Amino acid sequence: MTKFDEATQAIKVDEGVYDVCLDPGYAIGGPLNGGYLMAVMLRAAVDASPFEHPVSTTAQFLKAPIAGPAQVRIEPLKAGRTAAFARATLVQDGVAHIEGLVTTATLNEAEPVYEAPAEDMPSRAECVKLPDPKPDSGMTLNAQMELLFDPPTIGWLKGEPTGRPESRAYFRMAEPQDPDPYVLALAVDALPPVVFSAGARGWAPTVELTWHLRALPAPGWLTLLGGGRLISDGWFDEEVEVRDSAGRLVAQSRQLARVGRG
Amino acid sequence: MTKFDEATQAIKVDEGVYDVCLDPGYAIGGPLNGGYLMAVMLRAAVDASPFEHPVSTTAQFLKAPIAGPAQVRIEPLKAGRTAAFARATLVQDGVAHIEGLVTTATLNEAEPVYEAPAEDMPSRAECVKLPDPKPDSGMTLNAQMELLFDPPTIGWLKGEPTGRPESRAYFRMAEPQDPDPYVLALAVDALPPVVFSAGARGWAPTVELTWHLRALPAPGWLTLLGGGRLISDGWFDEEVEVRDSAGRLVAQSRQLARVGRG
Repeated sequence: MTKFDEATQAIKVDEGVYDVCLDPGYAIGGPLNGGYLMAVMLRAAVDASPFEHPVSTTAQFLKAPIAGPAQVRIEPLKAGRTAAFARATLVQDGVAHIEGLVTTATLNEAEPVYEAPAEDMPSRAECVKLPDPKPDSGMTLNAQMELLFDPPTIGWLKGEPTGRPESRAYFRMAEPQDPDPYVLALAVDALPPVVFSAGARGWAPTVELTWHLRALPAPGWLTLLGGGRLISDGWFDEEVEVRDSAGRLVAQSRQLARVGRG
Repeated sequence: MTKFDEATQAIKVDEGVYDVCLDPGYAIGGPLNGGYLMAVMLRAAVDASPFEHPVSTTAQFLKAPIAGPAQVRIEPLKAGRTAAFARATLVQDGVAHIEGLVTTATLNEAEPVYEAPAEDMPSRAECVKLPDPKPDSGMTLNAQMELLFDPPTIGWLKGEPTGRPESRAYFRMAEPQDPDPYVLALAVDALPPVVFSAGARGWAPTVELTWHLRALPAPGWLTLLGGGRLISDGWFDEEVEVRDSAGRLVAQSRQLARVGRG
């Protein structure tokens, strides 16, 4: 069991009730990373389902949970032949912090009928790491994963944003681990906010994030291709398409978030 | 009040409980259109919110409701300064048929900081209508709206699919009505399934649909730009970007659906 597997464990204590312990190692400044929190919720949702994979996950981020004990409550809504539907709620101190809807199904290996070509990425050798965060920054998440960025998309770090919402990087866990649906939940929310590349700064809280698991990833590096379509009135969208090491589209996400004021 | 306004009315009968009457005029074959059903749910969600606009809507389609009386139940989860969160459930005969999460906020007129360019569309004069459905087909939805298609994207009608999941059309209500968030809920699910253009046929049930309202639409025609990224293992994604008559991005949707076997 990897540290990530352990940090996302959900222990069933009653029908539809799971104890979890939110790990301080997945923080982005103060708050915990939303992708990590979704992974925790999905452990419980899949355990409670007759199917194996979380094919659709929606999370509304009501309130930022803190590291420490919490519960995931699963309320099954319907189980059909192909898919099952459930509510999933992350509760801390008796208060709902994340409200989710999860659809589970069992994905099979299949040759795609159609697959859109991926965006171009330079080779990993041409990509660059972010500088290590300052020790007191609370960015503990960075140590859990390796990200190698397409250089122009982190030009904002040295004051050269591209002017478009975008972020592209290779991704893998720092501790060797084959990607699985829970790693993908982390991956779809692992990039710096795409608005940084359009000149924005500061904490950009996610309001809602929906992602779809489309195939089980092959071992190896993932490629995260992030972009956005509109920044307006303090709101932006961020889309991430995840490709596995074989180039297969394995996950798609879109989040609606607020532009930071920092 | 237009016929659409009437068909989507939600009458508050108790705290968080709304009576609705599902209109047989929005059927696609047997079932009612998912976009129409979301519009009905959003009438109730907005009525129960301190904010004016449904900025994020997720719907899990558990069971197809039939025309006639139903209820929408709204359970507020949290109201902050910028946004409010709620569960929304469409119930018929005591059974949940659609489970939703709705985030409301109040959008303001704003000059976009960044807006991606829209896909090209031919002029309306170069676009074409679908043939009228057969009277016994149960496709009553078609009479409620006008759709003018980018011709190659309905080539599948005469056995010439483009080989890619895509569908692009101009859209307006048949009865004169300025587009609003409820019309947009209908619009994001108004195109024929994008997989038809990739050679698939038959009823393609939506499993989950999430859409975001990004701006209030200007009066006039909307443009619906639909595509998809992956068709595999019986599943496909459908994305629709909606532009208003001024070219502004007003709505974005993604749905996960099953490929038909028909």
